[in-house]
Amino acid sequence: MADKYPITDHSRVRRSAKRGAYDRATVHGIIDAARICHVGFLEGTRPFVIPTLHARMGEEILLHGAKASRLMQYAASGEPICITCTLVDGLVLARSALHHSANYRSAVVFGTGRPIEDPDEKMSVLELFTEKIVPGRWTELRATTEKELAATAVASVHIDSASAKVREGGPIDLEEDMTETVWAGVVPIREQLGPVEPDSLLDPATPVPEYLESFR
Amino acid sequence: MADKYPITDHSRVRRSAKRGAYDRATVHGIIDAARICHVGFLEGTRPFVIPTLHARMGEEILLHGAKASRLMQYAASGEPICITCTLVDGLVLARSALHHSANYRSAVVFGTGRPIEDPDEKMSVLELFTEKIVPGRWTELRATTEKELAATAVASVHIDSASAKVREGGPIDLEEDMTETVWAGVVPIREQLGPVEPDSLLDPATPVPEYLESFR
Repeated sequence: MADKYPITDHSRVRRSAKRGAYDRATVHGIIDAARICHVGFLEGTRPFVIPTLHARMGEEILLHGAKASRLMQYAASGEPICITCTLVDGLVLARSALHHSANYRSAVVFGTGRPIEDPDEKMSVLELFTEKIVPGRWTELRATTEKELAATAVASVHIDSASAKVREGGPIDLEEDMTETVWAGVVPIREQLGPVEPDSLLDPATPVPEYLESFR
Repeated sequence: MADKYPITDHSRVRRSAKRGAYDRATVHGIIDAARICHVGFLEGTRPFVIPTLHARMGEEILLHGAKASRLMQYAASGEPICITCTLVDGLVLARSALHHSANYRSAVVFGTGRPIEDPDEKMSVLELFTEKIVPGRWTELRATTEKELAATAVASVHIDSASAKVREGGPIDLEEDMTETVWAGVVPIREQLGPVEPDSLLDPATPVPEYLESFR
């Protein structure tokens, strides 16, 4: 398999093209780092963007949800779909208003979906989802039943083409603004996981699992 | 003006409808709290989802960018557009795999865009953008020139209809799972702003402004 996705007319990064990347490692890294994705689909001729949890297995982005949901029905339909994952890493404060920006990593994926109906395959996907939320969680849980699996829709979107775009580093100012005395730089943004909040119905003697302590 | 957006066939929350809200205060609050939005538009019959910075003024969501960008051209075209803002507030660990979830706030906006070309109006929008990045920043910066304004595209998307969806609180488990001994609860996710990183070309004597200290 080529290391890079094909650059198509729709996947080509046009603005700030030097920030674009098409290699699978960069695209996959952003998809995996994002806790949610935004899925773009159509209802008639109207665009919809819905946030949802996702997971990745090789060249497939996996989605799950209620069978009757618009998103899951579209994702299973084979119609063109766009899935975008974005992480905001910082606020970029430049010496002029127009050069203010954000540091970010984004991946825009174009693909086509198919339903996953085989119970074993669905079970693998559910494991992947659970492990993406908190690694180590799956093996601690009771087994998922066939009835539960049957009530859940799972769809896989194959990555036909994709591009990543990454901005990092400090402000890029005009030469003539370098004598401005205003503070300039970056305010980093990070995701912070807070102290765990036990369910109100949980037996207080239940220990916080090791995988959760190390995850935090 | 009514406190609520009209509930249309496309804006109605269908899954977990009890988590849906249509009041302007909730929708505006989520739009304002989100650092970026994901804009859904069409290229031919293909859906696109692009992340971008945004600001809000009343019932208008404002976008800016390069004049030649697909996004800005579409946003100015008057074609139907969807703008989604999402904040992930926590990971919800339930007693069974399928009830794992995320706490989140999302707003899905349906609207139509128009270009903003009046220089005074563009200047107001640029101020709004700058103040959204860091409140207090605008007045410290040199004035934006007419030439800079002319080189930037600004579009406004009127909120024709919108819905919010909010999940909060602990896991919702099956009654028969309440005897499971596994830890269950929420891992909160927060945005953390790191220590400011001065631009490498900044005079080290330049103080960090008060508005930035209090912002953090």
